[in-house]
Amino acid sequence: MRITRDTNGYVELGRFEKLIQILIVISLISFAFETLPNLSTAWQNVLKFTEIIIVLIFTIEYIIRISLCRPRLKYIFSFYGVIDILAILPFFLTAGIDIKSIRAFRLLRLLRFVKLLKYNKAIRRLRDALIDAKDELILSGIVAGILLYLASIGIYYFEEEAQPDSFGSVFHSMWWAVCSLTTVGYGDVKPITVGGKIFTGIVLIIGVGIVAMPTAILASSFNNAKKKEKKNDL
Amino acid sequence: MRITRDTNGYVELGRFEKLIQILIVISLISFAFETLPNLSTAWQNVLKFTEIIIVLIFTIEYIIRISLCRPRLKYIFSFYGVIDILAILPFFLTAGIDIKSIRAFRLLRLLRFVKLLKYNKAIRRLRDALIDAKDELILSGIVAGILLYLASIGIYYFEEEAQPDSFGSVFHSMWWAVCSLTTVGYGDVKPITVGGKIFTGIVLIIGVGIVAMPTAILASSFNNAKKKEKKNDL
Amino acid sequence: MRITRDTNGYVELGRFEKLIQILIVISLISFAFETLPNLSTAWQNVLKFTEIIIVLIFTIEYIIRISLCRPRLKYIFSFYGVIDILAILPFFLTAGIDIKSIRAFRLLRLLRFVKLLKYNKAIRRLRDALIDAKDELILSGIVAGILLYLASIGIYYFEEEAQPDSFGSVFHSMWWAVCSLTTVGYGDVKPITVGGKIFTGIVLIIGVGIVAMPTAILASSFNNAKKKEKKNDL
Amino acid sequence: MRITRDTNGYVELGRFEKLIQILIVISLISFAFETLPNLSTAWQNVLKFTEIIIVLIFTIEYIIRISLCRPRLKYIFSFYGVIDILAILPFFLTAGIDIKSIRAFRLLRLLRFVKLLKYNKAIRRLRDALIDAKDELILSGIVAGILLYLASIGIYYFEEEAQPDSFGSVFHSMWWAVCSLTTVGYGDVKPITVGGKIFTGIVLIIGVGIVAMPTAILASSFNNAKKKEKKNDL
Repeated sequence: MRITRDTNGYVELGRFEKLIQILIVISLISFAFETLPNLSTAWQNVLKFTEIIIVLIFTIEYIIRISLCRPRLKYIFSFYGVIDILAILPFFLTAGIDIKSIRAFRLLRLLRFVKLLKYNKAIRRLRDALIDAKDELILSGIVAGILLYLASIGIYYFEEEAQPDSFGSVFHSMWWAVCSLTTVGYGDVKPITVGGKIFTGIVLIIGVGIVAMPTAILASSFNNAKKKEKKNDL
Repeated sequence: MRITRDTNGYVELGRFEKLIQILIVISLISFAFETLPNLSTAWQNVLKFTEIIIVLIFTIEYIIRISLCRPRLKYIFSFYGVIDILAILPFFLTAGIDIKSIRAFRLLRLLRFVKLLKYNKAIRRLRDALIDAKDELILSGIVAGILLYLASIGIYYFEEEAQPDSFGSVFHSMWWAVCSLTTVGYGDVKPITVGGKIFTGIVLIIGVGIVAMPTAILASSFNNAKKKEKKNDL
Repeated sequence: MRITRDTNGYVELGRFEKLIQILIVISLISFAFETLPNLSTAWQNVLKFTEIIIVLIFTIEYIIRISLCRPRLKYIFSFYGVIDILAILPFFLTAGIDIKSIRAFRLLRLLRFVKLLKYNKAIRRLRDALIDAKDELILSGIVAGILLYLASIGIYYFEEEAQPDSFGSVFHSMWWAVCSLTTVGYGDVKPITVGGKIFTGIVLIIGVGIVAMPTAILASSFNNAKKKEKKNDL
Repeated sequence: MRITRDTNGYVELGRFEKLIQILIVISLISFAFETLPNLSTAWQNVLKFTEIIIVLIFTIEYIIRISLCRPRLKYIFSFYGVIDILAILPFFLTAGIDIKSIRAFRLLRLLRFVKLLKYNKAIRRLRDALIDAKDELILSGIVAGILLYLASIGIYYFEEEAQPDSFGSVFHSMWWAVCSLTTVGYGDVKPITVGGKIFTGIVLIIGVGIVAMPTAILASSFNNAKKKEKKNDL
């Protein structure tokens, strides 16, 4: 097995890393299966067994990483070191016990996602694009936020009397504003007064575009990053 | 405290400006909280007290600005001078009184938003992008407007007989047109006749893209503005 | 009044053209008002009177254009000549009569829109962008069409038995496909079977992007057209 | 008739190819018509007859292709050779029989779509754009997938108790996640708890953009491909 160390003292375990990635994906899928109601006992056992196997391998991985890392403490207290221990801890802490209050603790298992990201070259590239367009994204985020706030205030004044349940406060109205401006439109809250409808119409025409701006900006930045990469390759 | 004057005689108050910005955000959040129904008296007092403190500081700010500005009248009648006085006026005018008809007057407090914009460099950049793409935005706005109008006329002719309540006039139909073409689709108004459905299908396929155009144009212009800035920095 | 002739023998009537444009907009708005149910007689008269005035001016415009155009017949049989006559014809044909079967005929008045486009420089530019991106638009249109068709076939096979009313045939399913893939989602037709939901999920993830492609392409082409214009100006 | 052979030994049949394309489109439309309930016997016969004619011509086409191709076996076992035979096979296999279990078999006829793609130059160009942006598309696909998964987990924890039917498991929640993040929003599943609404709001604001990213990336890549083509043409 080829073993290399990166600048943070993190050990690259060669082909073994591929296995870890697959196990993470399996672990996440089994997490989803566990939530199915009315699971047969057979299936429950399969899922429990899968979880035990995965945690075992992750524990072995953790021990190997500690033993191979120089200096040893660097890994334990590094970002991924903390993630790695948090991703297996819930299993040991909740072993035997299945009290409901402790179940939320198992959500820590989802941190394995972060482990997955570690392996993915492409996600690092996306992060670069995000950093590149940070200013624009924050800016359009602020504008979108202001719009959401003003839209909520406005619809509150138009609809509060007609629909005190749906538009009982500006915070209630924000649920409407988010659903409308992202164009999801579940249809559970919507204006019914003439004033509210006209206001909504104007807000939608102006606002849908503003809320969609960050996407367009990010895609554009992504494209630029690619062009730069190609230029550097020449 | 470092004090500088811009070309409009507007006084920059150094670190004090940061405080003003934070107070504006707090003021806007407390505005939203005030709309909550069934607020306990304790909370109502907290909000009232917050508002008094904020208005006090804003008043002091206003007086400082007047006293520091040369020539003095320039600030009072400048754009931000008017905004600054309008943002605190409602407090003094409605002090003691809480008659419903006067409450709408308090909406003037929202003008503090404009004050916030003043401090934000990035929003100035967005304004530049908006100005740059003005022609295209107006144009696509006109086309989108024509589309909304024609779609409203069309659906009115198809659905009026079947749904006289929802599609009672072209103006009623416009509510449907806005909700559909922005793809929000609340589901409260929708075609039920075969003709109306076919018409809607055609309108949606053509129109959704046209209505979304301004966003794409603005994002593109935003990206160009950034490129230009970078070039100038070199 | 400054009078110029374009290459098609169409006469430019100087400041008079501005008046015509405003009258077209008024005419279109009054068209919408006429559809309002329970209009008072006073308002009905105002609208009728407006229409008479507008048609009168349009008729005078038409006569002036004929008398000024050389060769005269060129204008009458030109594209805008036909539009101009069709836009005033319904008034004379339906004068006095208000039989319902003839009302549809009044829709011809909407052709005045085309007249409006004639005056608008910017809309000509949009047309150029449309022509420039024609190939890509047709192509993405075909792909979107194929997707709509296949999605309709697929959902038909999944949902027909469970919801024979909503998904009674592939054509019924197309209504669902258009509403879903344009992301409008009225909510009147939606899958309820597990298979249908999984199929919908896959179709939406793949398809929403494909259906939105033409917009992105057009916006991009629009932006390019602008860049070219700027280059030519230098 | 002009006859040419491409590198795969595939025979180009000149003007005859155009006819085949039209027949494919007719065949696909008649497929949709066949699903209409309560079709009159007359119409059923028309559709049956159309199908027979089309299959006949396709069979003749297949025989011609085999007889003209050198070496003969190359066509039979080539990609389009297999498609061509699969597209006519269902007719011969289900002739006379109309058992329901065999009807699904007729879906193979839809493979004629692939035949259509063969003829379309523009679709080849789209394929190139897809290949060019492959990395970005896969990457944003992964990110969108992670988002969908995490959103489903999150809403499950917030809404499961309040709505055990709609959010009974993470898989149930995924239906909500897909509908919401693609902004379709049918409205059949939506959060009702305060926590769930706040979570949804945050997910929508972040997520709608992420899920829409692949479109923006593809459109951008499409545009680049066009620019490159133009450069090469010079």
